[in-house]
Amino acid sequence: MSALDINAIVEAFDAVIPEDKRPAALHEPFFSGNEWVYVKECLDSTWVSYVGKYVDMFEKMLSEFTGVRLSIAVVNGTAALHMCMKLMGVKHGDEVLVPTLTFVATANAVSYCGAIPHFIDSEERTLGVDPEKLHSYLRKNAKIRKDGCYNHLTGRRIKAVVPVHVFGHPVDMEHLVDVCHEFRIALIEDAAESIGSYYKNRHTGHWGDIAALSFNGNKTITTGGGGAILTNNDEIGRQARHLTTTARIQHRWIIEHDVIGYNYRLPGLNAALGCAQMEQLPTFLERKRSLAKKYKRAFEGIEGVTFFTEPRFAKTNYWLNALLLDEKYSVYRDALLEATNNQGIMTRPAWELMHRLPMYHDCPCMDVSVSERLARRIINIPSSVSLGESYV
Amino acid sequence: MSALDINAIVEAFDAVIPEDKRPAALHEPFFSGNEWVYVKECLDSTWVSYVGKYVDMFEKMLSEFTGVRLSIAVVNGTAALHMCMKLMGVKHGDEVLVPTLTFVATANAVSYCGAIPHFIDSEERTLGVDPEKLHSYLRKNAKIRKDGCYNHLTGRRIKAVVPVHVFGHPVDMEHLVDVCHEFRIALIEDAAESIGSYYKNRHTGHWGDIAALSFNGNKTITTGGGGAILTNNDEIGRQARHLTTTARIQHRWIIEHDVIGYNYRLPGLNAALGCAQMEQLPTFLERKRSLAKKYKRAFEGIEGVTFFTEPRFAKTNYWLNALLLDEKYSVYRDALLEATNNQGIMTRPAWELMHRLPMYHDCPCMDVSVSERLARRIINIPSSVSLGESYV
Repeated sequence: MSALDINAIVEAFDAVIPEDKRPAALHEPFFSGNEWVYVKECLDSTWVSYVGKYVDMFEKMLSEFTGVRLSIAVVNGTAALHMCMKLMGVKHGDEVLVPTLTFVATANAVSYCGAIPHFIDSEERTLGVDPEKLHSYLRKNAKIRKDGCYNHLTGRRIKAVVPVHVFGHPVDMEHLVDVCHEFRIALIEDAAESIGSYYKNRHTGHWGDIAALSFNGNKTITTGGGGAILTNNDEIGRQARHLTTTARIQHRWIIEHDVIGYNYRLPGLNAALGCAQMEQLPTFLERKRSLAKKYKRAFEGIEGVTFFTEPRFAKTNYWLNALLLDEKYSVYRDALLEATNNQGIMTRPAWELMHRLPMYHDCPCMDVSVSERLARRIINIPSSVSLGESYV
Repeated sequence: MSALDINAIVEAFDAVIPEDKRPAALHEPFFSGNEWVYVKECLDSTWVSYVGKYVDMFEKMLSEFTGVRLSIAVVNGTAALHMCMKLMGVKHGDEVLVPTLTFVATANAVSYCGAIPHFIDSEERTLGVDPEKLHSYLRKNAKIRKDGCYNHLTGRRIKAVVPVHVFGHPVDMEHLVDVCHEFRIALIEDAAESIGSYYKNRHTGHWGDIAALSFNGNKTITTGGGGAILTNNDEIGRQARHLTTTARIQHRWIIEHDVIGYNYRLPGLNAALGCAQMEQLPTFLERKRSLAKKYKRAFEGIEGVTFFTEPRFAKTNYWLNALLLDEKYSVYRDALLEATNNQGIMTRPAWELMHRLPMYHDCPCMDVSVSERLARRIINIPSSVSLGESYV
């Protein structure tokens, strides 16, 4: 085996990230619209906290953009995921199927409910949950009873599955929906990374029973910190609003609550920023596609790496761009990370796989050899909106 | 018994809240300093998310103001309380002593840990936990074992007590500290309402092992939504920072976590607002004292109501002003609420007592007759900074 030509890879970045844009972060916020106008108006109104027009406006914009009827804005993507679990009825002692290749929030949200993450494998085509592999796995390891799907081995109920649209690339949802129907498992979309990503011409967040978005500082649009719950179900939407506002019962003056609720609503100040960002989302997506195109071209001729492109059935937001090392070169991963970071090109590997983290080490886990291979090969590369070009 | 003279009470408000300040909310934010400057600078820097100078600056200002060495800014007061429980070692199945007269977040934070709130009574002098009554109660109902204090009746460990400085008025902490030492119970101060309140010349948050602040829109200062953990203990401070930032292990590029963490850090955008608010806190406190003085004077001659003033051992922030109806007139509470709200004077009773809420109905509860009496008699009245006068 010949060595990976690290220099050639580092030089390929020259065509995409010129000197004056270095150091280039993985993903920086981009404010070029009404950010200051809206935030100032919000400050002037003093409605900076949990009520006010900007929260309503932001939720309306999210629903209009995604096509999912109800949006409930919350403090961050983790809170959104936590509420999705609660709203889908995930209970203490349940299991929830979660890809091992994801950010830790997906598994943590399961734990917050006293439930146990059960780790599943991903496919190379999407980087997300492999519906076929999951199907065979459940056939062998699970049984459908009156009140749901049960794990043969642990005896615990498998309440839900959480497909994560990794780096913005949609999971093969149609097949996953079939698996969920067959096994009576709730479908919670972790769309934290996928605002602006479409699967078969419908926005992500449409395919599950409920979905979570994130507007953290490193996401396609940001509210500082923020997230949202998406659902087409009126009753779930009503409950989401209730649960995230301390479950307070409406009354002119009595302060009373009927269940254990959460203080999870997005403050108006952050929503004002979000409204300005949403106005620019189409431009952001265009810039991100142009950046992805440049990367694709730059790495086309280079031996040993492939720029990861959207699955055929999807149009993705290219939130976080990724190179895939050929398996045989994966031993060079850290050397490549070192070389690029030294050149002001911020890169990093995928998250450490969930089933390897100390707190999740003993959780149930299927064969995750594809994820393990992917984790050795993925290198995320700079993806900020500012690096792309706009043609509007 | 003669009737309560509701008209006289409504008219007494005229001396404090002139026509042009009505409708007067219970507590509105007040922005008269560097709010715009700092928030704009934060937007310009694009450091709106979980890192950046404003978070550091805000934490430094909190520590300087309160005198508590370490401050960790978080998304809200509920999150701060939740983390205080975790950091003090509250575990699934433990009991935590919580006043029944409090906002629901105090009890919810206990539940988030899988622990059980055990409700205790308050005293009329402070509206907060009655240390003497608690002492006798524990003598009768608890036993100290090697690993802590145990409830005779339930067999569960009593891990902590959470005094709440209700409406900003400090609990009699010195006595409570003694009780905690004697029974080996951790002391978590719910200082959500008491920034700017001092007990025996030291700021609240100093007396317990750890404390929680809130900067919700209705608090003395606001960050939109926000809170903080205060501690003088370096190791607890380090853990608080770790736990609130997804427990990520520091590394140049590997993303790894060693325990189940939380996404609870305050975004920079909100911290920028907080810095501007902190600069004005001394003025706000002065204005709030002047408002309290006006209320005291206005209600002095009026039969049947008393304006609640700070306990002798305390200097309080008068966050939320309160009238106390004489017990014999408590039947007129709702009529008085109706009459004042109709006049553009927003008033409301104390929170519904925790032990009466459906989800906490079956939790352990001492005799809480004082709280029950107080709940019938308390009426909160408008307390915004803008209603007070500044002499600077």
